[in-house]
Amino acid sequence: VTIAIVGLGLVGGSLARALTRRGHRVLGVDRPGPLRRARRDGAIASGVTLRAAASEAEIVVLAAPPLTNRRLLRQLAALAPARLVITDVGSVKRKIVREAARLGLRGFVGGHPMAGRERSGFASSSADLFRGRPWALTPARSRRAEARVRALVRSVGGRPVRVSAEAHDRAVALLSHLPQLVAWALLAAAAGDALTRRHLDLAGPGFQDMTRLAKSPRGLWGEILRENEDEVRRALRAFSRALSRAAL
Amino acid sequence: VTIAIVGLGLVGGSLARALTRRGHRVLGVDRPGPLRRARRDGAIASGVTLRAAASEAEIVVLAAPPLTNRRLLRQLAALAPARLVITDVGSVKRKIVREAARLGLRGFVGGHPMAGRERSGFASSSADLFRGRPWALTPARSRRAEARVRALVRSVGGRPVRVSAEAHDRAVALLSHLPQLVAWALLAAAAGDALTRRHLDLAGPGFQDMTRLAKSPRGLWGEILRENEDEVRRALRAFSRALSRAAL
Repeated sequence: VTIAIVGLGLVGGSLARALTRRGHRVLGVDRPGPLRRARRDGAIASGVTLRAAASEAEIVVLAAPPLTNRRLLRQLAALAPARLVITDVGSVKRKIVREAARLGLRGFVGGHPMAGRERSGFASSSADLFRGRPWALTPARSRRAEARVRALVRSVGGRPVRVSAEAHDRAVALLSHLPQLVAWALLAAAAGDALTRRHLDLAGPGFQDMTRLAKSPRGLWGEILRENEDEVRRALRAFSRALSRAAL
Repeated sequence: VTIAIVGLGLVGGSLARALTRRGHRVLGVDRPGPLRRARRDGAIASGVTLRAAASEAEIVVLAAPPLTNRRLLRQLAALAPARLVITDVGSVKRKIVREAARLGLRGFVGGHPMAGRERSGFASSSADLFRGRPWALTPARSRRAEARVRALVRSVGGRPVRVSAEAHDRAVALLSHLPQLVAWALLAAAAGDALTRRHLDLAGPGFQDMTRLAKSPRGLWGEILRENEDEVRRALRAFSRALSRAAL
């Protein structure tokens, strides 16, 4: 199967490596530098334009940040037949799913592998990133498209989880976006206290575990949090209520 | 060296195992059930009363919950010479350090091994619990007492960290007590949402790491949080400010 991956960062790069290893022909769409590195590492067969990807690939995977993925989706709608199977790996699903519906892209399946890492970029990518991990997939207009994306997920070791875009965005706000904000705030509160800063050696494994996410890239996260702003606000309110109750 | 340990839970039991393994004579003070289990496991040489511990041991370690430790300290003051070396393993230091000063116990060294676990009780104890872990020790009136407790800490693999009771309580509020409250609140916020509860399979390793502490025993934690209430409130305020800034 020929699969095009647009954006060869941590997730796109890992997916390219995993699919190539499974014998698929992987085309990469990215800037010249990342394409060169991915080709040199054997992660992709060749680098192509989005137009070439739309005509040559059977499945196109959008693996750029959320706003870019939506722009790419609009470009693809102008280049590709409506039944082209397209999926994305973004952390928020409602907006892109609605955009695909508006564009009449019946072959679009929203996707989100639950396989983040503190590190980012192609240099941190690994063919094993998705092994055993859940991978959210939103219902599509086309059953055939759903089946093909499910097969792709399984072929790289992921566990497909069918979930509506609404339930997904609610759940990741509480299970992923809120914990990300909390990790930053825990680290900032400790580092902001002069006495504590001199005794960070008293931090145990609990504190290490709870601030590991604080190393995640802020730029990408800012975009994700804005993309899911209403659900993130709701999660913050629920968390604040729970924190007040716990502290009684 | 003969060492008495009062309270054979996770920390007291682990300390008993570690010291016995190093060839010390360990006396246990606890209820009959725990003493029987500790003797059967070879963690202690024998079970004794607090009075016997005060006269036979060179060092007495208080390893009960904070309020009980302060009561035991008052009892010891009536039983033992003022120069008896006494230390504790409680999570909060100001109150017990002040109580020891009030009682004229010059041989008291406040201690806190940074080696908690989600599990508790003698059944979870291990001779390796303190290996490589920091162990806070407060300054004492007696240099000799400080040196003896430092040697005890090192003999079980801990890293002594000399810190004032005030700095300790500030630091653990931010590095341990606040994370504990946050872990409960993250879990409660997610579990309290019906949609999310149906999709807990979307939780990644980040969420698992950040809620691991939520399994800690609530009863003991309630007592610890009340013991450090002013610093915990200060930490909660700093955290809330940092969370608001992170969420912008």
